[in-house]
Order: sequence, then structure tokens, then C-alpha cells
Amino acid sequence: KELSLAPQVATFDRAKMEDLLKRRFFYDQSFAIYGGITGQFDFGPMGCAFKANLLQAWRQFFILEEQMLEVDCSILTPEPVLKASGHVDRFADLMVKDVGTGECFRLDHLIKAHLEKISADKRTTDDVKSDCQDIVVKLDGMTKAEMAAVMQKYNMKSPLTGNDLTEPIEFNLMFGTQIGPSGLIKGFLRPETAQGIFVNFKRLLEFNQGRLPFAAAQIGNAFRNEISPRSGLIRVREFTMAEIEHFCDPADKNHPKFDSIRDTELLLYSACNQMDGKPAEKLTIGSAVDKGLVANATLGYFIARIHKFLVKCGVDEKRLRFRQHMANEMAHYAQDCWDAECLTSYGWIECVGCADRSAFDLTQHTQATGVRLAAEKKLAEPKIVDVVEATPNKGVLGKTFKKDAKIITDALTQLQVSEVEALEKDLESNGSHELTIDDKKFTLTKEMVTVKRYQKTLHVEEIIPSVIEPSFGVGRITYAIFEHNFKMRENDEQRTYLSLPASIAPLKCSVLPLSSNAEFAPFVKQLSTALTKVDVSHKIDDSSGSIGRRYARTDEIAIPYGITIDFDTLKEPHSVTLRERDSMAQVRIPLDDIATVLHDLSYSKKSWADIEGKYPKFEQQESKGV
Amino acid sequence: KELSLAPQVATFDRAKMEDLLKRRFFYDQSFAIYGGITGQFDFGPMGCAFKANLLQAWRQFFILEEQMLEVDCSILTPEPVLKASGHVDRFADLMVKDVGTGECFRLDHLIKAHLEKISADKRTTDDVKSDCQDIVVKLDGMTKAEMAAVMQKYNMKSPLTGNDLTEPIEFNLMFGTQIGPSGLIKGFLRPETAQGIFVNFKRLLEFNQGRLPFAAAQIGNAFRNEISPRSGLIRVREFTMAEIEHFCDPADKNHPKFDSIRDTELLLYSACNQMDGKPAEKLTIGSAVDKGLVANATLGYFIARIHKFLVKCGVDEKRLRFRQHMANEMAHYAQDCWDAECLTSYGWIECVGCADRSAFDLTQHTQATGVRLAAEKKLAEPKIVDVVEATPNKGVLGKTFKKDAKIITDALTQLQVSEVEALEKDLESNGSHELTIDDKKFTLTKEMVTVKRYQKTLHVEEIIPSVIEPSFGVGRITYAIFEHNFKMRENDEQRTYLSLPASIAPLKCSVLPLSSNAEFAPFVKQLSTALTKVDVSHKIDDSSGSIGRRYARTDEIAIPYGITIDFDTLKEPHSVTLRERDSMAQVRIPLDDIATVLHDLSYSKKSWADIEGKYPKFEQQESKGV
Repeated sequence: KELSLAPQVATFDRAKMEDLLKRRFFYDQSFAIYGGITGQFDFGPMGCAFKANLLQAWRQFFILEEQMLEVDCSILTPEPVLKASGHVDRFADLMVKDVGTGECFRLDHLIKAHLEKISADKRTTDDVKSDCQDIVVKLDGMTKAEMAAVMQKYNMKSPLTGNDLTEPIEFNLMFGTQIGPSGLIKGFLRPETAQGIFVNFKRLLEFNQGRLPFAAAQIGNAFRNEISPRSGLIRVREFTMAEIEHFCDPADKNHPKFDSIRDTELLLYSACNQMDGKPAEKLTIGSAVDKGLVANATLGYFIARIHKFLVKCGVDEKRLRFRQHMANEMAHYAQDCWDAECLTSYGWIECVGCADRSAFDLTQHTQATGVRLAAEKKLAEPKIVDVVEATPNKGVLGKTFKKDAKIITDALTQLQVSEVEALEKDLESNGSHELTIDDKKFTLTKEMVTVKRYQKTLHVEEIIPSVIEPSFGVGRITYAIFEHNFKMRENDEQRTYLSLPASIAPLKCSVLPLSSNAEFAPFVKQLSTALTKVDVSHKIDDSSGSIGRRYARTDEIAIPYGITIDFDTLKEPHSVTLRERDSMAQVRIPLDDIATVLHDLSYSKKSWADIEGKYPKFEQQESKGV
Repeated sequence: KELSLAPQVATFDRAKMEDLLKRRFFYDQSFAIYGGITGQFDFGPMGCAFKANLLQAWRQFFILEEQMLEVDCSILTPEPVLKASGHVDRFADLMVKDVGTGECFRLDHLIKAHLEKISADKRTTDDVKSDCQDIVVKLDGMTKAEMAAVMQKYNMKSPLTGNDLTEPIEFNLMFGTQIGPSGLIKGFLRPETAQGIFVNFKRLLEFNQGRLPFAAAQIGNAFRNEISPRSGLIRVREFTMAEIEHFCDPADKNHPKFDSIRDTELLLYSACNQMDGKPAEKLTIGSAVDKGLVANATLGYFIARIHKFLVKCGVDEKRLRFRQHMANEMAHYAQDCWDAECLTSYGWIECVGCADRSAFDLTQHTQATGVRLAAEKKLAEPKIVDVVEATPNKGVLGKTFKKDAKIITDALTQLQVSEVEALEKDLESNGSHELTIDDKKFTLTKEMVTVKRYQKTLHVEEIIPSVIEPSFGVGRITYAIFEHNFKMRENDEQRTYLSLPASIAPLKCSVLPLSSNAEFAPFVKQLSTALTKVDVSHKIDDSSGSIGRRYARTDEIAIPYGITIDFDTLKEPHSVTLRERDSMAQVRIPLDDIATVLHDLSYSKKSWADIEGKYPKFEQQESKGV
């Protein structure tokens, strides 16, 4: 939970990491030369390559391995779509304004900061402290009125000026605009990518030849007009999401591959434990599903897969937990919801949400459009149903009612069983029945309509699928990975590096000629060509620094492997040294092998241990040249 | 040129292709269940995979091969940035409104359609026809007043109602919104990705260790509020761009790799030929640069690379030309500009622009922010310059002017040479000099300031780099590739297919068991696992249709290779057939080889001819089962 009073013990030097990320242009504030806008970031070459690799890994891990249907939908969304989804009415945060300056504050953040300040005060009694603690835990689920009461109780003022604050105001977080030249079509920048999948449900179901279950996925940008963006990449106005919508039969939420992940151990922080003040527990996903803690096997399957993906990409398993939403923070339609949270210097932050949203979204869009977003389910056994129908006699109706005949015919075919039975009774007892259509009354006689009864055999039934939704915040995951992999060399605090897994590191290797000796140049060129051919991204650093200094520079941008061309390289048989970033260990490898070795290491076909086992160790004092 | 009177001979069955693209969900209108919005499209699984492959090819071809710096910048852009770039004032199209209904029309499209109608009328004289032709050719460069005159001359009315039309109105094409809760910060959705690179110039230059030339690139979405979107993917409100900004010394626009593309033959349609009514000409890029037709070698290098990329991705070389902008359509700062145009059923459409924008963008942002977006250029030889400086005597100034001393000191160091010389003259002749700073006058004496003369050796000079900008419209390229690759089988118009190159086809191969015989199943599974392992995306089609019918279905979605598991597969040594989409030729391949063969074919490591040369031909009547 992001909202928890106790601040994390700050052993982590965030400023040092941020300096590295900024200095080597992983990312930085957008439009900085114009003063910048809070909550917007530009990714530089290293951040952009990292992000592209992370997304490619996601695509491989989820879309390709599970044969999901990937889509790429519009960002600009007309109002009715987001009205139906509930965003126009409810996608808002509460804010208060300084009555003097007009400065806006997000209310939950304001309350939390105020109560933290009170709690930290030595003069505060234990009773008050405990009240503060209790309020903060419940803040996420509080109503506008409840928050207003807290503000009043603790007499909150503007933290900047001490001025009074307005009553809480609901501020919708969507960016609005007008589509088209008339200015009449209202639209919003999508606040999530999911709706694009829901409105395409029919096409996707058809693409999947009508079969359930199937999953669709989308990677794309979404926008939220945050009241007061802060915490770097954690709370921003523009961000990349990767979302999956898994559509399944609401009566069958098993997953065919559940057994493959059943034994995965996870740190689960259940709603009960949160309420009872107990800590998170280590559990296998199998037992969590078996005992009903996780609502169903498909939800459980995705939770385990999310865990595996995050760890593979560099999230520290010991700083990863799944927190269940409490009843008061979960949407009314949701069956169950678990957030993958990473522990960072900002506390536990939600990086992936994984919810069973039931049939809510498809139902909403069906109601708004009249287009049935449903699937057909084959019945285990054909079902025989009784049909009672009022069959119009079109000839007689036409003669009697002329142009009104059609609406009467239509109305008759749409009657409910009870209405047909009432009509039948009227016709039998009175010989006529009065039908009302849009305030018009028509008197029908026995000649005009016949009631028929028969049985029909159904082979399929219509169902509205349930949706299991894993939703990834790419920026937050990125931030957590950076924090979990930012390290310092022992005994040298100035020498920091990022221990990113090779598969998502921005560049896979460096090519370093020992000196500017002209004899090295052809080898640099030959290596570069060979590496390009096997898709190994690399950086040539032929600057004049010592090898140690150049290694340090490549360590900073997380390059996992370094090839050095030295005087032994010039001799036959040609060979080079290969260095691994985290251990700083080196081996000597024949020049002809190096491209293949790098390809295998970069694409996780081989491990560094494999390479160390095969080639002779190369001993060198790395720090010598520094 | 999109604007040309003669409509293309429509032998191409666009409706048939659009039916395929819609039916197999390559792409379709966004929010269709809500009635849809014109100019917005969602990409389904096949379109999305195609687009991802196209962008990956682009990244490989441009970014990795040329070691460009890729960035990923914000879409929401604050107003001052787009004010400086000129978009706020000038990024507009002219429109007119129906005075009765308020319907909006884009003026150039209206004029073109009106004149086409007149020209097509048999009663129209040759003189009038020739005038119409002339106007249409010049339309792109016409001013508001000139267009208004044309409207009046030909008495244009609303094509829908016959009502009068308003005077031309400038309609800015950017989508506006407000950033933050106050509603006071105006922003726009970026209309191009380029500005994100320009505002990051300093960081990128630093990342490149201060060296020129270098190129930055960005793939991302941009938005234009088109007045009347039409022509499918050609004119849309939301689209993906891939842009490169190559920064170089304005005095040296050579390119080190120019010789590698010098002999590339291109169809060039020069501004002169357009003016003189002559056709495009075939020329090598080398001779075009040599004779000065293309302004410089770097521009020429990119033109040739663009050509190579488009052809590699499936654009028909015979329907590709480069058209030079005429003086009246080129921005005032541009040195030269060439558009890669593809011939489609909509006529020649611009797919890639390639312009030398000189130092315009960096200069504009420098002026707007005061941050110098410049590079240092090492001088060929150190330059000795004379320096004349007014050196303040801080002690005396401090005693005399107290707190004003600092502004005087600052003002003295910023004096121009002529001002220093005037001061020196005053001090020598009068013994004092009157200095005016912000309307305040200060009298300086010889004790307070000394004029010094000396020589300084400069090793670098400051330059504002020129920008060469290749800018790719991903949707337009996508559309052109689809048109150029939509084909029908000989003698069977119903059997259409897309002959996309394997590298960008959405899926690389199909796996088809001959029948639902249970003995085939383990082979299907084994093949699928083996293909996944070597990153070959594939589709298993175990539906009940005949093999011929299933091939036809996979041909429609451009799957280049099909593996069939038949009864011979069951026998040892196990083997399968492999079919190539365009030729429908088949070979018999050992099961153990198939994953490697598919990997090599999918990633252009081997050609189909290589495979045909190695494995025995397999004869089969494909149409038998259809």
C-alpha cells in the first residue's frame, strides 16, 4: 500500500541514482529548456532502448507465448465511450484549493502529509497517533464527506500559505479536447488502453472464430491529468501501459496451464491480513487458489505469470508482493483484485494490477450501444425450451391498420411470455385485446393474431464473458527495476552501476580498444560488423580513458559485457577478453567465437557461468588503470 | 503530387482489398459500435503485428545500422514550444463553411473537386480546362486571398446543399487541451514528433560527447485535427510517425557512407520538371547530387536509404518516386525537400518527407528560451583574435557606488568593442565616462576602469547545426504496401492474397495437420514448441476445411510459409511439406530441419530459392481440395 504512515528507512541513496539516470540520459523532465511541465518525462537513448527491450520482453512473454491477440487502438476517444465505461462520471480525484492563491492540492495526499506531521510530533498523544494511523489506512476507501470531516477535525490549512482551503472538489482526471472542425464532438485522451479492446470485442471474438477463452492485449500510451504529479516516474500525466483482457466463460475460470505455475511461491498480502494488521505471507499460488484466497485459477495463473515476468526483468523477488484490494477500495463489480507492488524508496508502489472485472465492461458498452457484446456457449447437452409466440396475421393487420401494420407486427414479435398470455386470455374472454405502442392504442381481434406454443431445441446459449485484466504500468515497473538494480562497487561509492539483466539492458556489449593504436582499428570494425549481423547492440568506446575508467562508464549504462582488444588480439590465433559487469570477471575468447557468444548471452541462450566454464579465465587488475 | 487533375485509371479493385483488410481485422474504424469517428482506425491482430514488424524493421534499418540516438518524448506539449516552432501561428488549413448548415469543407479539396467536375464536363472549353489544370497545379502554394478569388471566379457553392459558403477561415489543426487542475496551462497534442528531439538537443549532443554529426530518431504518435478526414489510412487524425533528425555542420553536408549508395537508381521528379510539365526521370543519386539537383550528399544519402527501405518492406519500385518540393510549397527556411511518393488508387501519395531544414528549429527554440542550442566546432587551425576589454577596478567601484557596484561590473564586462573604445576615448579626453544602465546614469573615472588589449587563441567556434529530416508516415506506408501487395490468383478472382515480404508479414508460418486424425496432434505440438523457441510466429489451423481452403485463408493474412503434416509425416524419417505463398511451390523437408529453415526464411537469412535448391520438390494439386 502506497498509503502507510511509517516512512521507509532511507538507506537507499535516491539522489545518487537520479543523478546517474539524468546524467547518462535514461530519462529527464520534458521541455526542461522551457521550464518544464511536472509529470512529464522524455526518455533518452538509454531509457528508450531499455523501454523498447522491456516491451519486447513483455510481448514475447505474454502475447507470443500465450498467442494473445494484440491490438493498437485510438488514443482520442469520443465522450459516449467513456461515459459508458464510467470514466466521465467517476474518474476523478478530490482536490482542495487554497482560498487565497488558488493553488490546488490532491486531498488524500494533503491529509496523509498532515497526519504524518502530527504523528511525528513528540507532543502528540498515543491516542491521536493511533487515530492518524487508522485514518491513513482507510483513506483509499473514504468518501468525499468523510475526508471533509477529517480535514475539519484536524483543522487543515494550506501547507504553503496557511490559508483556508475550499471544500473538497471532484476533479476529473481526463484531458478533454474537441474532435473535428465544428468544435461539437467532445473527446478525451484515453485514461487507460482497456476500452479500445472492449469496443473491439465482437471483431476479436470473430477473429478467434467465436471461441472462448481468448485474450487480447495492447501496449500504448494513456493520459491522466494528475492534480499534483510527483515522485518522478511514479505519478505522471502521460504514461505507457501494457494491458491484457482475458475473456472467459463466467462459469469456468479454470486455466489449462495452471498446473505449470501451481508451485510458484509468492508473497501475498491478503485483505484480511491488512484489516487485522498482520503482515504479508509466503504461499504457493496453488494453495492460495485452493483455499479461495485468490478468487479463481485464471486470476491465479496471471498473478504467477506477472511475478515470473517481473523477476525475469530485474525486479528483486524480496521486494515484490501481491496485495489484495480491500472491499472499500475495489470497484463494486470486481470479483477480486491483486496489485503487484514493488518496495522502493517511495514505499510499496503498485506496478501491475490484476483484477477479475466480471462482465462489467462488456455489459456497459452493450447497454450504451445496443450492440450485444456476447459470446455463444455450446451447451453440454441440447436444451429443450417452451416457446409461446404471438404470430401476426399480416394480411388482416395490413388491411385494417394500413401503414401502422408494421409497428404492430414488430411489437407482437417482441412481447414477453406474460404479455402473450395476457393477450391470449383477452382474445379468449373478450374476443379482442388492446395493444399500446408509444401512447397509441390498437384493438386486435382473433383474426389478426394467433398464439402459438411449441418446443425448440437450443444447442448454444448466449453469455457475456467475464474479464480478467492484468494491467501493467510500464513507467512504474521501469522505476522499480532501476532502484532494485542500482548498485555501488564495494569500497568505492563513486563507482555506481546498474545490474540490469542482459535481455533488457539498453546495449548488450561494449567494444574497447586498449589504446588508440592504429592496429586495433580493423579489429574494432570487424567486431562491430559481426555483432550487428547477429543483432547484438553495442557501443564502441575508443576514447582515450583508461580501460578501467571506460568500464566504469559502460557499467553506469548497464552494459553487461565488455570486449577488450589488446596487444594479444593482434597475434594469431586472434583473441579478445570478455568481461562481465556484475562480477567483473574476465575470460579470453577466440575472436571467431565472440559474436556467437555475445548473441547467446544477450538472448539468454547461455549464462555467464556457461561461458566461464568453457573459456580460460583472464586475470587483470581492473582498478589499475582507474 | 496528390493534387493532379487526371484521376488514376482505376484497374485496382480497392473495395475488394478493403473487404479483406476489414474481414481479417487488419484494421477498421475506431469506436464503430458507437457510430465511429472519421479519421481514426484501430489495428487488429494482423495489422498490429504488421505494424510492429514494420517498425522493428525501421529501427533495425535506420537506428541500429546508423547508431542513431533513439528517444521517446512526451505527446502533450505546452504552448510556448509550439509557438516557437511556428505551429500555433501557422499549422492551419483553410476551410469554408456552408452558411446554412455550418458544414465545414477543406478549401483546397473543395476547389479541386469543383474544378475536376468542370473539367470533366464535355461543354467546357479547352481554355477553361487549361485554366482549371493550372489552378490545381498551383493550389498547394496559393494564399488565402488567391483561393478566395478562385472560389469567386468559379462561383463555388456547398456541394451538399448548394448554399453559399463563408470566406476562407484558417483552422489550426492541433488538438488543444489544458494541463493541470488550474486550467491555466494550455497544451496541444504534438502534431509531429520532431519537436521532442529539438528541445532535447543539448542532452543529445552531450550524450554524443559533443560531437557532430549525429542523428536522433523517434517513433511515436502525432495528432492532427483534420477538417475532413478521408481516404482510409491516408488522411487520419491520429497516426504513427517515425522521424529522424540528423544534425550536421552547415558547412559540411557530406556523408561518409555516400559512396555505398551512390549508384542507386531512383525516379526523381524535380521541381523544374513539374513546372515545365515534364515527367519524372530515372537517375542515380550520385549524379543527382553531383549536378546539384539534390542539395547535398547527406540529403541524397537519406533519399537512397529511404528508397531501399521502402522497397525492402514491399513497396513496388515501379510505383515509387521522389518528388521535389516547388519553391512555393517549401517552407522559407528549407534548403531542399523531397517526398517519397507511392502510386496508389488514390493517386501519388506522400509517404516520407526528406528535408534540409537548415538551422531553423534550433534557432527558434534558442530565441524562445535563451538556451543556446549550438555545438562547438573544432577549428582546422587555431584562430588568433584581438580582444578589447574594459576591466573594472572592483575596490574603487565598491567604495564609490556601494550596492550598485555589481550591476556596473556586469555591464562593463558585457560592453561591445565599439562601446569599450568610446569609453576609452572619453576617459582619455575628459577623464570620465557616463554609463547608462536601465535609465540610471553612473559617472566612471580612470581609477575605476582600465581598458585592456590582448590576443586570444580560439580552438573552437560555436555553430548552430543544420538539420536533415527524414519523416515517415507509418500509416501511409502501410497502406501503400497493402495496395502494392494485394493480388489475385490467376483464373480465380475470389482467391486474393497479400504478398508481403516474410520479414514484415504478421505471422511467418502456418501449421496445418492434413485432417483431424489424432496421430497428427503430437507433431503439431512439437512443431509449435520448436518454432516458438526460434522466434517464428505461427498460426495453427486445425479446423476441418480442406488443405486448399486453409491455404487460401492463410494467404489472405499474408502468411508466407505453410507447413503441412500428412500421413508421410508419421513415418520415419519424419518429414513435412513446406509451401511458399506466392509461387504455391512445395518442398519436402525433414522434421528436424524445419524450425531452422523457417527461422532463416523469416529473418531473411535464406531465400526460398535456397530452400528449393536444397530439398526435393513436393508435387500436389493444391486446388484439388478446394
